[in-house]
Amino acid sequence: MGIGDLGKRLLIGRKLRSAQLHETLLSKRIALPVFASDALSSVAYAPDEIFIMLSFAGLAAYAFSWKIGILVAFVMLVVVASYRQNVQAYQSGGGDYEVATVNLGRSAGLTVASALMVDYVLTVAVSISSAAQYAATAIGSLQGHQTTVAVVATLFLMTMNLRGIRESGTAFAIPTYLFMAAILAMAAWGFVRYLFGDLPQASTADLRVAPEAGFEQGFTGLAAAFLLLRAFASGCAALTGVEAISNGVPAFRKPKGRNAATTLLMLGVVAITMGLSIIVLGNLMNVRMAESPATQLIRPDGTPVGPGYHQEPVISQLAAGIFNHFPPGFFIVAGVTGVILVLAANTAFNGFPVLGSILARDGYLPRQLHTRGDRLAYSNGIILLAGFAIVLIVAFQADVTRLIQLYIVGVFVSFTVSQTGMIRHWTRLLRTERDPAARSRMLRSRVINAVGLAVTALVLVIVLITKFTHGAWIAIAAMAVLFVLMRGIRHHYEQVAEEIAVEPDEELVLPSKVHAVVLVSRLHKAALRALAFSRASRPDVLEAVTVNVDSEETERLVDEWDRRGLPVPLKVLSSPYREITKPVVDYVRSIRRASPRDIVTVYIPEYVVGRWWEHLLHNQSALRLKGRLLFTPGVMVTSVPYQLHSAEIAKRRAERPVVTPGEVRRGGPAQPEKRSPARR
Amino acid sequence: MGIGDLGKRLLIGRKLRSAQLHETLLSKRIALPVFASDALSSVAYAPDEIFIMLSFAGLAAYAFSWKIGILVAFVMLVVVASYRQNVQAYQSGGGDYEVATVNLGRSAGLTVASALMVDYVLTVAVSISSAAQYAATAIGSLQGHQTTVAVVATLFLMTMNLRGIRESGTAFAIPTYLFMAAILAMAAWGFVRYLFGDLPQASTADLRVAPEAGFEQGFTGLAAAFLLLRAFASGCAALTGVEAISNGVPAFRKPKGRNAATTLLMLGVVAITMGLSIIVLGNLMNVRMAESPATQLIRPDGTPVGPGYHQEPVISQLAAGIFNHFPPGFFIVAGVTGVILVLAANTAFNGFPVLGSILARDGYLPRQLHTRGDRLAYSNGIILLAGFAIVLIVAFQADVTRLIQLYIVGVFVSFTVSQTGMIRHWTRLLRTERDPAARSRMLRSRVINAVGLAVTALVLVIVLITKFTHGAWIAIAAMAVLFVLMRGIRHHYEQVAEEIAVEPDEELVLPSKVHAVVLVSRLHKAALRALAFSRASRPDVLEAVTVNVDSEETERLVDEWDRRGLPVPLKVLSSPYREITKPVVDYVRSIRRASPRDIVTVYIPEYVVGRWWEHLLHNQSALRLKGRLLFTPGVMVTSVPYQLHSAEIAKRRAERPVVTPGEVRRGGPAQPEKRSPARR
Repeated sequence: MGIGDLGKRLLIGRKLRSAQLHETLLSKRIALPVFASDALSSVAYAPDEIFIMLSFAGLAAYAFSWKIGILVAFVMLVVVASYRQNVQAYQSGGGDYEVATVNLGRSAGLTVASALMVDYVLTVAVSISSAAQYAATAIGSLQGHQTTVAVVATLFLMTMNLRGIRESGTAFAIPTYLFMAAILAMAAWGFVRYLFGDLPQASTADLRVAPEAGFEQGFTGLAAAFLLLRAFASGCAALTGVEAISNGVPAFRKPKGRNAATTLLMLGVVAITMGLSIIVLGNLMNVRMAESPATQLIRPDGTPVGPGYHQEPVISQLAAGIFNHFPPGFFIVAGVTGVILVLAANTAFNGFPVLGSILARDGYLPRQLHTRGDRLAYSNGIILLAGFAIVLIVAFQADVTRLIQLYIVGVFVSFTVSQTGMIRHWTRLLRTERDPAARSRMLRSRVINAVGLAVTALVLVIVLITKFTHGAWIAIAAMAVLFVLMRGIRHHYEQVAEEIAVEPDEELVLPSKVHAVVLVSRLHKAALRALAFSRASRPDVLEAVTVNVDSEETERLVDEWDRRGLPVPLKVLSSPYREITKPVVDYVRSIRRASPRDIVTVYIPEYVVGRWWEHLLHNQSALRLKGRLLFTPGVMVTSVPYQLHSAEIAKRRAERPVVTPGEVRRGGPAQPEKRSPARR
Repeated sequence: MGIGDLGKRLLIGRKLRSAQLHETLLSKRIALPVFASDALSSVAYAPDEIFIMLSFAGLAAYAFSWKIGILVAFVMLVVVASYRQNVQAYQSGGGDYEVATVNLGRSAGLTVASALMVDYVLTVAVSISSAAQYAATAIGSLQGHQTTVAVVATLFLMTMNLRGIRESGTAFAIPTYLFMAAILAMAAWGFVRYLFGDLPQASTADLRVAPEAGFEQGFTGLAAAFLLLRAFASGCAALTGVEAISNGVPAFRKPKGRNAATTLLMLGVVAITMGLSIIVLGNLMNVRMAESPATQLIRPDGTPVGPGYHQEPVISQLAAGIFNHFPPGFFIVAGVTGVILVLAANTAFNGFPVLGSILARDGYLPRQLHTRGDRLAYSNGIILLAGFAIVLIVAFQADVTRLIQLYIVGVFVSFTVSQTGMIRHWTRLLRTERDPAARSRMLRSRVINAVGLAVTALVLVIVLITKFTHGAWIAIAAMAVLFVLMRGIRHHYEQVAEEIAVEPDEELVLPSKVHAVVLVSRLHKAALRALAFSRASRPDVLEAVTVNVDSEETERLVDEWDRRGLPVPLKVLSSPYREITKPVVDYVRSIRRASPRDIVTVYIPEYVVGRWWEHLLHNQSALRLKGRLLFTPGVMVTSVPYQLHSAEIAKRRAERPVVTPGEVRRGGPAQPEKRSPARR
């Protein structure tokens, strides 16, 4: 198994808690890009949003952009510092959901889970929409078709994930490091050119930004303060993805907690450097962004740029200016930014089913989602995620600025709840800890988490106030619906578990006799097989039963039965209304009534088909009958399959070995691991 | 069993060919309304369409309306005369489909079936749209909302049919006779008033009809001829429903053929009388109709009536004029016309599933549709029919004139093919018949059917030529798709039948041993029941098997197993990828490989739930596993049900006796009818 594939497996969490884990751990060098693409990619749109929000008040407000950038960087530092405590305390990979559940109870955990699920959807929608913007920047003919590009990209990611992409840690590492290198190199070259007085202006530098209603008189008063808060809230989109490392702690080499904490710090430093560089260069080069560029951006001659204008992202504008003597530089920067955004969306495709699996384990989602190895369970999650993301992309026309209004509510709910949980955690530990050194470490951690709580809670309040009417209510409503739904599912499972719990002294009560009934419609190979199999099971009573829907056919069946001398008696049930189900169910019930301590086994010949549409043509009556029979206690239904040719072809196709590079499956059938002593 | 319910049962064909049929036959008095509502209802829109088509050429063309009416009446007489031969020759209720299949082969039969299915959909769409028009006439506030009214009415009919309406022959007879009485009384009163020189003009009489492009210079040349053909083709909509009686022959009292033929003649006479009366009165009262009334109808002052104008159907205009001193007369006529149209649509809801059942019997549709007693099979047909009708209603905005362009292609395909079949039928009989009296009867019948073929083929050609580009191509395309689809289904069934046919000397080959495997995930009541039932079946080998997805859970299960001292050995299958399906399938295959002559029975505990959403939360893994296991030959899957509380509640609800007036179900469970000698 190559290290590449291991990275992927760890990333998508399949092997978490499995026995082979120790062979497959990540060095910090690989872990950083694996977990950082989501967090780093947000510098592709977060600075833009700060400029765009400020543009409401015209150019005067642009002066605040770097101050807001520093505030966001401060929040980033606080969050990183807080999560450094989290990863050292909780190393199982449960992340915020675990922290919240353990320390604050089920409802808090479920709140975090709902918030994260909504934010996964938004991660896809925002990242892909932003990637579409960069694609339109580099390839002019895509301009105006961003929605289509974004939908196609989402469908592409969905398909790749459904097929089970085998991208490796290295596959993640290369574009992520390329992205870091490209942005930092661009920034460095820009600052060098600035020092030599050679930094060109952005292509938008000569445009004027017309203030919107309310700001014609200047940038003052309550409105100005509110606008700064909005810009800050939008800029905080840079913080999404920081929590990813806390879900990935088990994937780190030992000491896991320390290594994860170091990686977090590296991530924070890189993200802040990149983000602040972009904002400062944007100011130096006089980049102009607006929410409605067509009317808000005014040419030097006083005319607005009009609806044909394509607004380029800040990074594109910087790259075009800084690399004006080296055009490939622009395409490299725009290209790697697009790639990193797609990778960021892809992390959601990995994270969503993992979270679903954890929630299913705890009974909040249908149980079958828990067994992650099952392709189908995974597929449902992937399709759901893509579906919701596409709905958002289409509804908001791939407009990053409008999507950002829904974003990060979830992340900050998660941050806030988990920091609260961490404070409880330290308080609980401090109650029993006596070692002074350990106590002082815990006290220090508790202070850090308390600061984290204060800052993230404040940001959450700011986000809620400034974004609620602009779309955040949609995200909040979605979280509430998820919360109620998942609590309902858990309640249902708990009720069922109670219902089927076994008493400590409960014995196996054996039925006295087995009465077997073989359903026959015509005498074909499938019916013969069912007769043979049922006879081999040697029931106490065995009879074949047919329903008289068509007298001629029944007559033919009875004749052939006699002619062949089949060693099983055939009973004909009358069906005055030409039904199949009711006569059989009534007959089986009459057997049960006659001898309630017996069980009845109904053998149904079933065709096994290989093509989906064949299901519509076969077994429908059998399925319906089975559904009705199972409602009667003391009745078993046995399907005796008859494999049609199409099924054998389908089976052979399904079993054709698929060998993918870097993956070797343990061969052979599963072997029994353990056997409890037989007591037959 | 009331005679009312019998009428319904016969109408929908449930009891055709059943033993009790002789008790429940229809007199001509009841048969006429039962089978005539579809055919008679078309006088509610066919005369309108003649006027509307002629309006393209302005008022000059109106003079041709009664000539076209007479032509349509002639076609009606020919068709009635032809079908009088059909019903005497084929009395089994198979109708045109049977005539075509028997005499011309499968493809002809299938052509007729496709055509009729498409026309059933159009019967619903046209009748309901027309009914909506009458409703808007009587209730002014519905004007402009005809599409909504039509969709709601279709959904209402669908719901009633899904619930199983128990309308009786009488329930059909009363409104049909009321409709005949109302229209004929109106016509008679109109003619009386005309004789006394007291017939008022229609409310539209003073409007002028502006000719459309091409007819400004008068009503001459090829264009005029083509327009007359179009008007004739639209008027032929009056002929739909005539074939209904030929499907209902078995429901008549003896002599069935003679009685059915007499009823057909009565139907023809009534329909022609009503239709011609309406056209003549429309001419006398100078009714004005136009395809685009807003622009085509011109007020005496030269202004068009404009988009606010609601065009009333001809019958409404006549009733308003003739009963101008007796307003209730208008509402009675409009009301019964609306009701008869809804009844006409309802006959399609009855006929469509019956045709589906016949086609399913012959292998052209999924087999489970054959057992008509099954509510679900019926339901699918009803929902499909309503769905397609609603699509048409919405697509054509409940515009009868545009829908008529798709209509009657199917009926005339069916007429033409079946008349061809009848000619073959007589020719075949004549080859062997020697009795001169019989021969002369057959020769006469053959002549009548030949005339029928000539006329209906001519009409079909006219319909195709004049309507093809106006919408008939949609109907034809739909027929072609149905044809191909049904032939494909039959081909598939034939292949399968060949595949599973039993050799004459084929013996029951008994497997040597039965190896039973009980799947266990946790130790609860459902698992205990599965263990008990499997043990009661006394297999040669019995073992419980669990898949180790979560080591802790597996540990707990093994411990509890040992503690309880369960008398069945428990095997733990390892699952390195946390799958459930693959380890079990691999294990079962390894058993089969070790002893290929054994069979393996896999017992799966299954929860039986009562609410649809509970299915999403239970048994999903079991279902998937079952699907995979059945692909392996020699493996049976036995579902051991465990009924949860919700299932018991649902079962009790389902079994609550539903007694509807006029229906008494034979009580008690189905009793064995016949028993072939046991030879165990």
